[in-house]
Parts: sequence; C-alpha cells; structure tokens
Amino acid sequence: MEGMGARMPKDANRQTQIAATGAGGPPSGSGMGRRAFLRGGIAAAGGAVAAGAVAPQTAHAANAENMAPNVPDWSRYLGPGVDATPYGMPYETEKHVVRRHVEWLTATPESAVNFTPLHELHGIVTPNGLCFERHHGGVAEVDPADHQLILHGLVERPLVFTVEELMRFPPESRFYFLECAANGGMEWHGAQLNSVQFTHGMVHCCQYTGVPLKTLLREAGVKPKAKWILAEGADSAAMTRSIPMDKALADAMVVYSQNGERLRAEQGYPLRLVVPGWEGNMWIKWLRRLEVGDRPWHTREETSKYTDLMADGTARQFTWIMEAKSVITNPSPEKPLIYKGFRVVTGLAWSGRGRIKRVDVSTDGGRNWRTARLEAPVFSKCLTRFYFDWDWNGQPALLQSRAIDETGYVQPSMARLRDVRGPNSIYHNNAIHTWSIGANGEVENVQLS
Amino acid sequence: MEGMGARMPKDANRQTQIAATGAGGPPSGSGMGRRAFLRGGIAAAGGAVAAGAVAPQTAHAANAENMAPNVPDWSRYLGPGVDATPYGMPYETEKHVVRRHVEWLTATPESAVNFTPLHELHGIVTPNGLCFERHHGGVAEVDPADHQLILHGLVERPLVFTVEELMRFPPESRFYFLECAANGGMEWHGAQLNSVQFTHGMVHCCQYTGVPLKTLLREAGVKPKAKWILAEGADSAAMTRSIPMDKALADAMVVYSQNGERLRAEQGYPLRLVVPGWEGNMWIKWLRRLEVGDRPWHTREETSKYTDLMADGTARQFTWIMEAKSVITNPSPEKPLIYKGFRVVTGLAWSGRGRIKRVDVSTDGGRNWRTARLEAPVFSKCLTRFYFDWDWNGQPALLQSRAIDETGYVQPSMARLRDVRGPNSIYHNNAIHTWSIGANGEVENVQLS
Repeated sequence: MEGMGARMPKDANRQTQIAATGAGGPPSGSGMGRRAFLRGGIAAAGGAVAAGAVAPQTAHAANAENMAPNVPDWSRYLGPGVDATPYGMPYETEKHVVRRHVEWLTATPESAVNFTPLHELHGIVTPNGLCFERHHGGVAEVDPADHQLILHGLVERPLVFTVEELMRFPPESRFYFLECAANGGMEWHGAQLNSVQFTHGMVHCCQYTGVPLKTLLREAGVKPKAKWILAEGADSAAMTRSIPMDKALADAMVVYSQNGERLRAEQGYPLRLVVPGWEGNMWIKWLRRLEVGDRPWHTREETSKYTDLMADGTARQFTWIMEAKSVITNPSPEKPLIYKGFRVVTGLAWSGRGRIKRVDVSTDGGRNWRTARLEAPVFSKCLTRFYFDWDWNGQPALLQSRAIDETGYVQPSMARLRDVRGPNSIYHNNAIHTWSIGANGEVENVQLS
Repeated sequence: MEGMGARMPKDANRQTQIAATGAGGPPSGSGMGRRAFLRGGIAAAGGAVAAGAVAPQTAHAANAENMAPNVPDWSRYLGPGVDATPYGMPYETEKHVVRRHVEWLTATPESAVNFTPLHELHGIVTPNGLCFERHHGGVAEVDPADHQLILHGLVERPLVFTVEELMRFPPESRFYFLECAANGGMEWHGAQLNSVQFTHGMVHCCQYTGVPLKTLLREAGVKPKAKWILAEGADSAAMTRSIPMDKALADAMVVYSQNGERLRAEQGYPLRLVVPGWEGNMWIKWLRRLEVGDRPWHTREETSKYTDLMADGTARQFTWIMEAKSVITNPSPEKPLIYKGFRVVTGLAWSGRGRIKRVDVSTDGGRNWRTARLEAPVFSKCLTRFYFDWDWNGQPALLQSRAIDETGYVQPSMARLRDVRGPNSIYHNNAIHTWSIGANGEVENVQLS
C-alpha cells in the first residue's frame, strides 16, 4: 500500500497522528463544514498537516513572506531538455501508480487481469498506460501491415479490410467505460481484498476512435435473415462472442485509437470491437473476423464462461449489460483518512444503460443517504466522477455510494443481489460497496449482513 | 516522414499508384460522394488498396470466406501476460509517433520545444506522453514531498501549501487546450516547414484536475487593492508572469493531474497553473509562488519576450488570449493523399474565448467555403475535432480551414493578420493555414499572397 507509505511513517501511531492533525488540513479547520470553509476569510486554512508535523496557522502566515525568496535546490540547476523524452513517462516519484495483478486469481499471467489503480486517478479519463487489461491467451503481437478484418456470412458482399482501409471510413470518437463482467467477482463469496484497485479496478474509460460497425455492415449488405454477429479475435485464445444485430447497428464500433493515439497492444492493437455498456469480454481485441448469422454461436465464452449460475442450477445466459454501479475511490483502503474534519469524498459511477442521473452517499451503512455532486461531463455509458462533502468526526463510519441511472435503475445492495441471483454468481456484481472507516482512519472492505 | 513509409514502398511511382488505387479504398468507390457511400448496398467498398496491390472487389468477396479459417501466425503462440507491463507503452510499430524538436530553433534543448504529432492523433485528448513541451531552463526535477506553494502579498493571511494539502480542497476537472504563443511563429517570416507537427504542434489538450485558484485566494483573503497575481515556477528559469485578478478568479486552476494521472514532470509536476484559453507560458509549471499585488510586475517574459513588435516600432503587451484557430491535420505533409475519390478531411479547432461555433473548409484556397461537421463534445477553450467530406478528383488543390468561435470571431487570413500586425511578429499567429495538394498527392505548406 504505497499510498499510505508516502504520507505516513511506518512506525507512526495512527491514533495520535489523526488527533494531532485534526486542526490542520485546509478544508478541515475546527470541524467546520464546506460552506463556512468556502465562504472563506474565517476558515483556518493552509498550514502543515504532513504526518506528525503540525504548525499553527499564524506561524505559516509569517513563514510565507520569509520563504518566498528561498528557492529550492531544484531551481538551481538546468533540468533535462526536450531531447530527453520523445515519448513521455510519469515522474519517478509516481512509479508506484501502476496496474497490478493478483497471482492466485488465474493459472497463468497470460490468462490474467491487471487492475486499474482507481484510487490514484482523477477526472474520468484513464491514461492508456493504466487501463486495466484482461487476456485469455496473452497479448497478441499483431503486425498492423499484415492484419485484416474479414466480414462475411449472411451478407451480400463479403469484404476484407486492412487497418489502413478502415481508417478511410468516416470516423467517430466517443468516451466509453469498459468493465469486465467479473469486476468485483471475488466479493460474491466473501473474499474481501483490502484494495479498491482489486475490488473495482477491472474498469477503465477512454475516448475511442474508429468506424461505427453499422457503416461496415451497410457496405457488406446484411441479408434479411441476419440477426447475430460473431466477433473473433486474433489472439491465441481466439476470443469469440455472439452479438445481436440490434446492438451492432445501435452503437458498436471497430476502433483503432484510444485517448488520441493508436490502441495499446494489450487493448487489441490494431483493431478492437467496442460494445458500449456491455461486458468487456465482448469488446473483442485484435479483431480479425466478423461473421453475420441468424442465431448465436454459443461459444465457450457464452456457455461455460460469462454466464451466471443461479440457485436453482440453471444459468442466466447473454447477460451482457453492465448495470449501474459506483464506488468510492478516496477514501479507500489505499487512501486512509489521516485527519479529522472536512474532506471531499470522491468516486466513480457508470451504467451500461446510459447516463448516470444521481449518486447518493451514506456514511452510516445505508441508513441515511445524501446526494453527491456529479461533475460534468456526464456522458452515456461513460465513467462519471462524483464528489461528496464530509466532515469526519473521527468516529467509525460505514461509507457507501449508490448510483441511479437515467432509466431509474438503482444500484442494489449485496443482500438484494444475493436474493435474486443466489450464492453461485461470479459475474455482474454491481452491489453497493461498503468501506468501513476505523477510528484510526484505516479503511477496510466489509460486507454488511 | 514515417507516416508515408508505412503505407508505400520507397521506390513506388506515386502517380501510377494513385491512379491505380482510385477504384479501391472503401469510401472512394467510383468518384462516389459520401451520401451514396453511406446509403450503402451500392458503393464499391472493401478490397485491397495497399500500395501497388489492387484486387477487384469480387476477388475479395471470394477471399473473405476462404480466408476466415486461416488464422495468422500471431494467433498460434501465447503472447505476453499481465506481468509484462505494469505501466503500458505504445506497441513497437507505433514507435515513430513521438514528440519532435527542431534543433536550430533554440540555443539548447533545455530552452526548446517538443512538438505534438497532431497528424497521428484522433479525437480531442492528447495522450500525456505526446503533449508538447516548452522549457526555458529544462525540466525541473521536483520532490513532491518537499515542494510548497507560497501564497502571499496583498492578502489577509499569507499561506503555504504542500501538494498533499492542496489535494484536500474540493477538486475540479476540466478539458482545456494549451497552446504556446509561438505556435506557428516560424510562419510569420515565411519559413514553411513541411510538417503539421512543426507548424501547429505547440498545442495539446487534457482533462486537468486541481483546485480553482479562487478557492485559494478566498482562503488567503484578497485585500481590496489587489488587482494582479504573480505566478513563479520552481524551474531554473524561474518562469514568472503577471496575471490579472479577474482572470485568476474567473477560471484559473492550480492543477496536479492531467488525463487522470499526476502531471508529467515536463508539464510541471507536481503543480501547475492552468490559465484557460491564454498563452501557454502563463501556465506556470512547477508552481512555487503566487504573489498578490496591485500592478503587473513587467517580468522578462512580458516585456522582452511574449510581446508583439508592431510595424511602428511599439509593442503590444499582455496579449494573453489565444484567438480562434484551426488546422487540417489529415491530409497534411505527413499524411499525403494516396488514392483519389472520397475521403474524410479532419482537423482541430480551438478558441481562447470559448466554444468553437463553426469550422469552414475550402479546397480552392479560400474562394469557396463549406461547413465542416463538429464532433461532440464541443467544450469551451478546448480542442474541437472537425470532419469534412471531400471527393478528390486528383487535381491540385489548396486546402484551408477557418474557425469561428461563439463570440463571432472569424480566424483571419495571413494577409489580413499582416495588415494589422506588420511584418515583425513572432507570437499569436492564428492565420488560416494552407496545404497545397499536388496531383501526385503530396501535401506542401504554402502561403498564399
């Protein structure tokens, strides 16, 4: 948990520390709420609240004028020039902000998941280097000059496209979230990893650029009997999923770019299918083939896997849509509370059905709810950032968030989800998540009964 | 020009090639416009149009079914797992997409510019690794744990903030463009670098996250006499600019994050001032000091530099706003035309005064204009992507774009700009730019008299 280490000596007495810093941090003041704080002029603000070091505000007022002429060491030498980094990377003190995987989760790293560090992110864009990745047979290493997309089956004119040819079609760019069906899957059976990166990090959000799939289907001429499309990847797992024609025509895309630049290899370079709001395994990477048909193919990934085993022994199939969900990313296990008083709780909400309409936050395990602020832009099928002002009194608390989307769907409790789905599910856990805040400021992943 | 190399053998006869591929590329067809093409069903589409290889469409129709079972080599082995790239990078065949600098432009690489490869970008987000950078004394290497922001001068309570403390204030995330005042400066005197990366690449666009400057000013309590703010960087150049209080209160921010993750070192890690719509040198990087005063400081960067020498020998000072501007990024010198017929011309438009309202495109050097499509989102003081459908007949053409912002301001011609400013300017060249298209498809940077 690097997040903590950076702020707090390992041997620190947390209890003492929190008490000591209670009078410090800018929006903390003396238990003052946000309104008073923002009205300004009166609020105690500024001042050092780094762990263990507390200076009264007046000392800081004096310091400011004295400190101004004293430039730091790094102002005294010439830093690297523009020839240093043709393609830039994060600074060395941010090296801990990386994707991480759980070794015991899958048999091999080639069939594994690398989780997005949600607790370190701001806004709604996930930088390409931190986008969660899930592979079934490792990252395919595709030569874009030799790659082709085949479009065939129940069409008037079977077609083959090179990447360069696809880039000649009228492009579209759209911000969408991508979530794995298994995000939070470990929670179904009570595994409570103490980390928002691992409980919710199978999601990312990019501006994707490519060609609407309907454009390619019109070029090929879809036959009247056609109702489904099979999408197949060029990876060693040959990931293959059936997609209804209605969805393909509605908003699916064949993309070649994410966040302005070409797709990363682990995201399907050079071509990926985007199926907005639907589970991530359908967003076929290294896309090589689209076959049009009149019924679903019932591939392994929609029969043995990515179905939901119900209590009566039957399985839900074709549960594509990622329902409304949210999570508080700060505080979180990686971002404990280190001072009492005012703070902004923040998190992310998303829905596969459209726009997020509202997010509520509870600090008492769901007994009382208050509405959070949504930050613009609020796009359809895209991460939405929310903020919630909280004046923490230093007592234990149970933090939750609850998303409501534009269809009126309300993110359910885990108990409600288990009532409907039974105890066997792995996928599609969109339950309200609970962070337990201790009096020492530590944050733990708990499930309320 | 790597962009060309990837598509075309070096010994290819361009003239022949263009003629040969005229019947090929998806949206090209037989001189068919976009409407017919998108109505679908009739348009000739798909097919190989890679350089030199032209297959009739029917051959491709046959190939599609035959090719489907033949998986490529990269489907036959297990690729790298999730342990390979904790922080991801572009794939090896995209290594040519980098920032570039012009060696003769400045005395040293520490006082130089690295240009964004606009011709390779899609959508509106610039990935952090490709954001243009401009330094006056190299990249400051700041330890974020020791960095402090001093806020003093004409305030009730001088304050000092650590980075961690600033992150406790209510955050905001906003998409903004950042443009150097000198973007296109080489064009004033007729230098015509044959590259959109070098003529327009001193611009980038990110979602920035931080604290509104007005929040910090309210905390400190601005005294009635205060009208200006001095912002100073912690780099070896101690970059310093005066900013009017009205702008500081309107929309300036102290940011710590760009595109979701912490600022890159070359963008001012750990703190940068964001001054939306205003020239980039005011967006002080490695921000260490904000001094409130009653008049501008007349620093070197607003007297000797970043002023505009007029024809009568006087200089315009405090020309902060980046006026409406646009450029076609594809085609461009790095992205020549390699087939006749239908294509989508694309580019970027932006205005320091607000939203882009309209972009017009001319293919005859400004005699006739047609309106381009703007792609959502169209944010204020942010890059806006535009598209323009063009059926190229293979004849020489003069491509231009012209942005109009929500204030009604129209991007001027270079002749008009020279009429007003005289011949001496370096900064604030927002003139309409012309790409000359040759019959061979090559694109050249020209200035019309």
